[in-house]
Amino acid sequence: MVREYPENIRLSEDGTAVVIIDQTLLPNEIKHIELRSAAEMHEALAMLRVRGAPAIGIFAAYALYILANEASGGDYEGFLSLVKKHSAYLNSARPTAVNLSTQLRRMEKVSENLAGFPLSLILSAMREEAETIQQEDIEMCRSISENGLELLRDGYGVMTHCNAGPLATSRYGTGLGPILLAHERGLYLRAYCCETRPLLQGARLTTFELSRAGIDCMLICDNMASTVMKEGRVDSVFVGCDRVARNGDVANKIGTSGVAILAKHYGIPFYVCCPSSSIDPDCINGTKIVIEQRPAEEIKELFFEKPVAPDGVQCYNPSFDITDSSLITAIITEKMICRAPYTVSLEQVISSKTASGR
Amino acid sequence: MVREYPENIRLSEDGTAVVIIDQTLLPNEIKHIELRSAAEMHEALAMLRVRGAPAIGIFAAYALYILANEASGGDYEGFLSLVKKHSAYLNSARPTAVNLSTQLRRMEKVSENLAGFPLSLILSAMREEAETIQQEDIEMCRSISENGLELLRDGYGVMTHCNAGPLATSRYGTGLGPILLAHERGLYLRAYCCETRPLLQGARLTTFELSRAGIDCMLICDNMASTVMKEGRVDSVFVGCDRVARNGDVANKIGTSGVAILAKHYGIPFYVCCPSSSIDPDCINGTKIVIEQRPAEEIKELFFEKPVAPDGVQCYNPSFDITDSSLITAIITEKMICRAPYTVSLEQVISSKTASGR
Repeated sequence: MVREYPENIRLSEDGTAVVIIDQTLLPNEIKHIELRSAAEMHEALAMLRVRGAPAIGIFAAYALYILANEASGGDYEGFLSLVKKHSAYLNSARPTAVNLSTQLRRMEKVSENLAGFPLSLILSAMREEAETIQQEDIEMCRSISENGLELLRDGYGVMTHCNAGPLATSRYGTGLGPILLAHERGLYLRAYCCETRPLLQGARLTTFELSRAGIDCMLICDNMASTVMKEGRVDSVFVGCDRVARNGDVANKIGTSGVAILAKHYGIPFYVCCPSSSIDPDCINGTKIVIEQRPAEEIKELFFEKPVAPDGVQCYNPSFDITDSSLITAIITEKMICRAPYTVSLEQVISSKTASGR
Repeated sequence: MVREYPENIRLSEDGTAVVIIDQTLLPNEIKHIELRSAAEMHEALAMLRVRGAPAIGIFAAYALYILANEASGGDYEGFLSLVKKHSAYLNSARPTAVNLSTQLRRMEKVSENLAGFPLSLILSAMREEAETIQQEDIEMCRSISENGLELLRDGYGVMTHCNAGPLATSRYGTGLGPILLAHERGLYLRAYCCETRPLLQGARLTTFELSRAGIDCMLICDNMASTVMKEGRVDSVFVGCDRVARNGDVANKIGTSGVAILAKHYGIPFYVCCPSSSIDPDCINGTKIVIEQRPAEEIKELFFEKPVAPDGVQCYNPSFDITDSSLITAIITEKMICRAPYTVSLEQVISSKTASGR
């Protein structure tokens, strides 16, 4: 039952482009696009052609490696300055997910630590680092999936919001990881996928991934979550995350906090699947997380044949929200399942990450 | 600041058609359509060209009057049998709102009570009854708006879900009534309109009505309600309803129960505006209310340029949900503001309705 997922981020064979599946065209078209310039890469991030916290970290790592090649003929000072300039530019495309800045910083560090070595060697090391980031992501997703698996039982109804599957990572995904792994191990699950307005990642991407994997899935509008829970169809909720504060507050796709409040109201466990790279040790709580605001057109026009609201009507379009840690039953990391008090349990994850030298 | 709203339901000048604004074309086109046959009228109800609990009651009353004319040349038995046949057919178009069956029943009663009189006289009485139903609706909306007004203060942020405005009634509306009246009286309010997937009545109709009235309104996706409340932008929630059980459980547009749970979580009052005709004395609680299930295409295809989910993915599409009475701060009727225990307060409304002979 193991199925290969389409490879969503890779270097082109000649090493001069990042190749991604353009996620804005899914599910109607599976199209790979090659990105070579900083402007193209920034646009792909901003327009969500590549999205998902882990995926944008991996993408940015490969992207920075490719852009660094532009300065391979000059001196080290010029090289480092170009790396930092491109890194800041890519980082500016999306503010909320911590993975973007974390992985860009890792790539910068490689170029800093190898000061004095030939640029060709630094570039090789940067390419290796990007590959390592991707490989770590695959292992991380696998470990999160294994950890999450113990919270699932045969026959469960599982709700998920947005897309935290293979397309958002490298394989398995975070929020969808336990579900995909459970299915591989022969458990029957039914997944309820919230469509996730305005960009419909749940409809376009999550049902695409789950139905390809052969998992019984049911698409609902976001505002149906309450009814579906009330009818007893949901045994647990699994979501991914974009940034987790030290106290366990979670930034994730807009609507996540609403699902968490409903789950609490109906007594349903609410789980966040979180790579340790999404825990931000510099962030003490959710109020410190910058929430990306996106344009009104996404609500009124994007995907639609005709505008769905009158001209001139204002929209509020925050792309993420903060789920209070008090609403979260557990945060599943690749190291361990963290429970409240999160200041203690997440600290254990942060320390073990530091200890292992990452 | 009083503004006339487009007349959304009326008889044609020659009295052979019901004329409505086709609400499926809003906000891009204000088009009046004339409906003459039972099939056209049923289709208009089922396809939501006319919608909103009070509005479909008024529409059905005029529709039944027009259809009754088909039998004006025969005997009374044939006439009554045709009236009942058409009434049952129109009633089958939508199961959840009680107004449809209540107003059709009123129209049937006119034809029953006048047994023995000339058919032309019965038809005149039916036309008058339909006009009375519409006139009562206008007064009812006005009284609900006056009653609701005392719960609003200058500067309030008010959230609403779906559309319970003039288009859903005859004038003012139920859920939007207090907001429109407050604006006429010079209060500044900011309305947060949930778009209300899948049919987007909040985006297409509520922002259309509020912005035409000059009210500051902000469109959000349904899943943004939690964030908007958390940010302290919402002082109260006002919604309409399709059927209210004797215990105060409320059937209203899908998503209403979720908004109510969020409001409770954030300590925000949640008000239901309810004409007494929407209280169903035969319904002891929400579990007895039939919830209309609508086709998957509404979620995956309607309004969109291309399908937003892969072929074959199942959808669950309940059109309404039940909000538990425990989540409701007050139910605002045209007679009084009802508070818990609702079995007592709603009973007062039901008794006063019976006493006044309606």
